[in-house]
Amino acid sequence: MREPSPSAQIPDLPAVAADVLMRLRERAPRVHCITNAVAQTFTANVLLATGAVPSMTIASAEVGEFVARAQGLLINLGTFDRERTEAAQNAIDAATDRGMPWVLDPVFVDRSAPRAALARDLAARGPAAIRLNPAEFAALTDLPAAERTAEDLIRGYARKSGSVIALTGPVDLVTDGERTAHIENGSPLMAKVTAMGDALSALVAACLAVEPDPWRATASALLIFGVAGDVAGRSATGPGSFPVALIDTLHNLDRATLTSMGKVA
Amino acid sequence: MREPSPSAQIPDLPAVAADVLMRLRERAPRVHCITNAVAQTFTANVLLATGAVPSMTIASAEVGEFVARAQGLLINLGTFDRERTEAAQNAIDAATDRGMPWVLDPVFVDRSAPRAALARDLAARGPAAIRLNPAEFAALTDLPAAERTAEDLIRGYARKSGSVIALTGPVDLVTDGERTAHIENGSPLMAKVTAMGDALSALVAACLAVEPDPWRATASALLIFGVAGDVAGRSATGPGSFPVALIDTLHNLDRATLTSMGKVA
Amino acid sequence: MREPSPSAQIPDLPAVAADVLMRLRERAPRVHCITNAVAQTFTANVLLATGAVPSMTIASAEVGEFVARAQGLLINLGTFDRERTEAAQNAIDAATDRGMPWVLDPVFVDRSAPRAALARDLAARGPAAIRLNPAEFAALTDLPAAERTAEDLIRGYARKSGSVIALTGPVDLVTDGERTAHIENGSPLMAKVTAMGDALSALVAACLAVEPDPWRATASALLIFGVAGDVAGRSATGPGSFPVALIDTLHNLDRATLTSMGKVA
Repeated sequence: MREPSPSAQIPDLPAVAADVLMRLRERAPRVHCITNAVAQTFTANVLLATGAVPSMTIASAEVGEFVARAQGLLINLGTFDRERTEAAQNAIDAATDRGMPWVLDPVFVDRSAPRAALARDLAARGPAAIRLNPAEFAALTDLPAAERTAEDLIRGYARKSGSVIALTGPVDLVTDGERTAHIENGSPLMAKVTAMGDALSALVAACLAVEPDPWRATASALLIFGVAGDVAGRSATGPGSFPVALIDTLHNLDRATLTSMGKVA
Repeated sequence: MREPSPSAQIPDLPAVAADVLMRLRERAPRVHCITNAVAQTFTANVLLATGAVPSMTIASAEVGEFVARAQGLLINLGTFDRERTEAAQNAIDAATDRGMPWVLDPVFVDRSAPRAALARDLAARGPAAIRLNPAEFAALTDLPAAERTAEDLIRGYARKSGSVIALTGPVDLVTDGERTAHIENGSPLMAKVTAMGDALSALVAACLAVEPDPWRATASALLIFGVAGDVAGRSATGPGSFPVALIDTLHNLDRATLTSMGKVA
Repeated sequence: MREPSPSAQIPDLPAVAADVLMRLRERAPRVHCITNAVAQTFTANVLLATGAVPSMTIASAEVGEFVARAQGLLINLGTFDRERTEAAQNAIDAATDRGMPWVLDPVFVDRSAPRAALARDLAARGPAAIRLNPAEFAALTDLPAAERTAEDLIRGYARKSGSVIALTGPVDLVTDGERTAHIENGSPLMAKVTAMGDALSALVAACLAVEPDPWRATASALLIFGVAGDVAGRSATGPGSFPVALIDTLHNLDRATLTSMGKVA
């Protein structure tokens, strides 16, 4: 029965996130994204703004080769059609063969039963991290809605599954079952622009490519995105200018801003 | 032979549109969009900026469930591939079963015969509204181009079909055969940015979800979008900054701006 | 053994490009694009900003009709799935039947063997121009990487294939084997935004629709895009605001700016 000390639980995440961001810019990891059509362009531009190099093909015949030459992988169910579903399986096979960590984003699993069933199958294949919102977590785990934000349950799921769970909302929660961080950055405009969560999941995949500890990688991605959202929210005049400012901010983000603005509990 | 009075024909549309916009923000209707790949991101962001909640899946296996949990539906033929065509039929089945109004956007039916044939089949399934431009109207109705803007023909088509017709251009026309409004808002930059019409059609679907009179709902959508276009056109410096400003404006649009700037005849 | 004079090799390209841009705005050529999902929206908006009219359908049943009513065609392999591959063949058939020039953009052929094989098949079908980067050129031609920027080899490939080669990077190279231009415009931010190369290839297709000399058309497209990139790079604050500024700039670009800023060697 390990009893982690508070300082072991929560390292200086802003400093960790700054290190991870610098590594993204230095190493420029390739991140392959099987993601929904709505999110593809914004996701690619978020990755490029942080230093990663995106690819997006969903052709089954070649997805394995793309993954084999990448350092990160995102599987997002956003608009899952036949070809994407097949490509997702091939991509996970290729990642698993190489021991490469991958991220699952079970978008909208609360909206359709076949989607939730597919998401459970994919979650059982061992993603390093799962990024989702409370309603999606409830549908993925088949929990009643009332219990969906109970932290004990989330930690329990993370421990049992071996996947880091990143539950995003006004306050984000990142846990591997042992260590839990609450990140309080972001902007209300994030809920008024499509593909914000999808792009964040891709950034988790990029961070996993340069940081071996999945919990640190995931928390870093959420902190980088959240602080950039804070900064962008101050200059934006609505949900049109917000994503423009967010990408500019991600590109220009420095250690000092992460350290001074990061709100972690 | 009903002879509507002018005041019955044209209510105070800016006031109606302001009510509809407030209801969008209060009720946050879910709007499912089967739409073309080029338009998906911009359409989602336009819906979010007005208060609606978009979904976009085109997987046949799940589109019925998405529509069953939505309050509005858009069918857009923009890039119609096999899967989208099948999904469109499933989605219309689900909407019809539940008595939910839906919108048809027969993009580019003037460019290909199979597309025009499909659009005629879908138009016969009873959309609450059809949003299109004059060339598309001519192709959909098989009218010679010279007659395509004759208002009598358009009113006749609306009366016979039972669908509100929204014909967009420098001046928009909205008619159910009895009531006709001409909306003179908008910006020339709207013709220089892709997906403007597609996003407007999605906004019609959103308005139909919160306003039971299809003509009022459709005219409100066109007025909201047109006034926002007017405002955005004043600050934009070209077709790159225009859609950014349009989404900011839709998010911030208030009753006073709609009332003072709405140009309806 | 033709020995072209320096002046024959390099005409006053900024003046040529300005003429081509004015023709784009006057003639508004329709350009059909089989392109990847990530690039569709940005590509459409770049074409619209320069005066061209894009269409993007990939449905095999109708792509032939769209191409038959267009004046330009782009084939981009970015996210090549089954339907896009089939549509590409149909589209090239339709273009070849009508003697219409088309552009090949063999995106990411260095990342997967089936993609490279498809690109070689398509290159053998006689595109008027091929736009690609050095790594893609090496993969397409099966050259060792060390030789991939050797100008003699590129000129040789252009001469043998009959396709103008546009190799883009910090300095762009455009050659038909006889005439070679080096274009030094652009912005480092172009490498930090997705779909820049894809959109440029679409602009090459648009220029081929209004300029019968494929080398002049291709060089004009690269110069227009590069100068707009230079201008946009001066006002942008990062890769979020850069594409917004680029589209505004393309829309507002005039002969004086092209002439004063174009850097051709």
